[in-house]
Amino acid sequence: MKFKIQHTDVLTSARAGEMETAHGNIYTPIFMPVGTQGTVKGVHQHELREIIKAQIILGNTYHLYLRPGTDILQKAGGLHKFMNWDGPLLTDSGGYQVYSLKGMRKITDDGVKFQSHIDGSKHFFSPETVMDIQRIIGADIIMAFDECTPYPCEYAYAKNSMFMTHRWLSRCIYKFDNSDSLYDYEQSFSPIVQGSTFRDLRKESAEFIASQEQEMNAIGGLSVGEPHNDMYAMTELVCSILPKDKPRYLMGVGLPENILESIALGIDMFDCVLPSRNARHGVLYTKEGIINIKNAKWKEDLTPIDINSTAPTSRIHTKAYLRHLFKVEELLAGQIATLHNLSFFLWLVTESRQKIIEGTFYQWKNDMVKSVSQRL
Amino acid sequence: MKFKIQHTDVLTSARAGEMETAHGNIYTPIFMPVGTQGTVKGVHQHELREIIKAQIILGNTYHLYLRPGTDILQKAGGLHKFMNWDGPLLTDSGGYQVYSLKGMRKITDDGVKFQSHIDGSKHFFSPETVMDIQRIIGADIIMAFDECTPYPCEYAYAKNSMFMTHRWLSRCIYKFDNSDSLYDYEQSFSPIVQGSTFRDLRKESAEFIASQEQEMNAIGGLSVGEPHNDMYAMTELVCSILPKDKPRYLMGVGLPENILESIALGIDMFDCVLPSRNARHGVLYTKEGIINIKNAKWKEDLTPIDINSTAPTSRIHTKAYLRHLFKVEELLAGQIATLHNLSFFLWLVTESRQKIIEGTFYQWKNDMVKSVSQRL
Repeated sequence: MKFKIQHTDVLTSARAGEMETAHGNIYTPIFMPVGTQGTVKGVHQHELREIIKAQIILGNTYHLYLRPGTDILQKAGGLHKFMNWDGPLLTDSGGYQVYSLKGMRKITDDGVKFQSHIDGSKHFFSPETVMDIQRIIGADIIMAFDECTPYPCEYAYAKNSMFMTHRWLSRCIYKFDNSDSLYDYEQSFSPIVQGSTFRDLRKESAEFIASQEQEMNAIGGLSVGEPHNDMYAMTELVCSILPKDKPRYLMGVGLPENILESIALGIDMFDCVLPSRNARHGVLYTKEGIINIKNAKWKEDLTPIDINSTAPTSRIHTKAYLRHLFKVEELLAGQIATLHNLSFFLWLVTESRQKIIEGTFYQWKNDMVKSVSQRL
Repeated sequence: MKFKIQHTDVLTSARAGEMETAHGNIYTPIFMPVGTQGTVKGVHQHELREIIKAQIILGNTYHLYLRPGTDILQKAGGLHKFMNWDGPLLTDSGGYQVYSLKGMRKITDDGVKFQSHIDGSKHFFSPETVMDIQRIIGADIIMAFDECTPYPCEYAYAKNSMFMTHRWLSRCIYKFDNSDSLYDYEQSFSPIVQGSTFRDLRKESAEFIASQEQEMNAIGGLSVGEPHNDMYAMTELVCSILPKDKPRYLMGVGLPENILESIALGIDMFDCVLPSRNARHGVLYTKEGIINIKNAKWKEDLTPIDINSTAPTSRIHTKAYLRHLFKVEELLAGQIATLHNLSFFLWLVTESRQKIIEGTFYQWKNDMVKSVSQRL
């Protein structure tokens, strides 16, 4: 993977860059829509390309491993072909999902024994098996197997967990370096910084991850319930240590204002289920603020959902119509709302990039942070 | 509404025609996708036009009356504008839905008192109120308020019900003729033949309906559980009586083979929830037969869903992928399957029309009836 920084902001640490992957280039900063089970919920693949303008999407190793399973994914020639998405693809390591299976998983230094949330069947994820699975899924970018600590987290637990994540990282890198892509393109690997909200741990983890000299670097364990200021402080600290010339991915973040502030701190890549999940519950993000479309105030509002949206469905349909679709629980409600939110998140990062290049990011970002978080 | 028969088949009673409505022309025979609550479930309006090639869609008066309600529909300028569908639109009268509310409705000669299936609130539909509601919804074609008899049905009940439907029809016509469109286009009205599966009643009803000399005519009360041969016999009988130069609409039919056989009997218009509802349960219709995509046999089938489909999503995606989407209960499953089935039904009627014009309908229809009903 090649990464080129095209412009660095003067007033903030924001950067505009370009990543080259086997399935196309990505212009950063970028947001990755989440396609958990081989589909971004409610969105056709051609809509990802043509309407949302997604440049890269994310798949979940844990879910894909369980269903459809690695046999059929390998037979199909990887997830790109299985789901018919020929753009860049990133898979997480399953660490976060496995970690979330409270009471159904046991973490040891070897790896994680867990039971499927579907049928209770028993499975084992280790740094090695997770590399193997991600080789089969065949994403352009694959992630290290880590433990994502909760918030709040005891210092001792966070420290031990961080060291285990580092040991797992060494095994991931060894396995990755000593295996080949199963398909006719190369994959890239990203390690993950952990350390909860403790400055010394985050510093130590960032230094360890930086020393591995991988093609890109990620920050995990944030956006798990900590105050936003802690998220920003940890992100700033870690960004000051991670190499400047490699892409930086802040995992699982977040709200529009989180994305804007984190771009200012030097983050290049984001993913979050929030825009798509909240869309399915009628929460819409716009430049002017947040709309809960189920609210009675929109009942007779025959103005467009969002006249500024890059999604035609949000310009054509009215708030009253979308509210009706939600009230009668129609599938089209989630479809229109998902196109809306993901289009907005992609607009937000694309516009950030433009403002960085134009040198007007700082003021625009400050105005936008205020505006996007208002309740309409 | 103008209707022109362009070609009549020699070996069957099939016709190829053209209807002019205020929102565009319809080439018959035609199938109308059902958009119960102001949306064809899981389908964007532009997909109705561009992928499914729908020429006219159907809305349900009962559902639209309850939600979003007539106030907002009128404020929006009718259902076309509310839902952003600028093509032809037909609304049923609500008779079938109200009739289905067993134990929650009382039918008298005045009309039907019923309780909402949503909140139990009390309402009253009469020939007059239903004309008023359909004036507000503003469909291009609106239907008479009738009673749809069940199958099986006692002769005496069917006869009394038919007479009531005829009395209601006279009131509908009076109300329709003495009211105006609320919008800047004209609406057309269709009476409905009833009479269950009794030849003498169907004959009497068809003669009464024909004598009303309305712009088109519909056949109701079939496809309610009676044997297919009864459906065809009643359809043939009624078609022999209804005027040849007016469109004939067989309500609620049906399976692909029912549609083909009924076209051969002289039917021009169809609607049915079957292709869209079955799609959401993984039942796909193709030229070669019926696919239950949830079946284990498709698990590793990496061939296209249907290489002959007019829907790009059915040519691009594999059976294994669509099966996976159904197994993990993803929204995209229903979306892809609905586009598939509705595209197939529109293909079926469009191809029928072409074969009628070419003079090869009879043999093609016989071959197709065998093929489409096979289980794959």
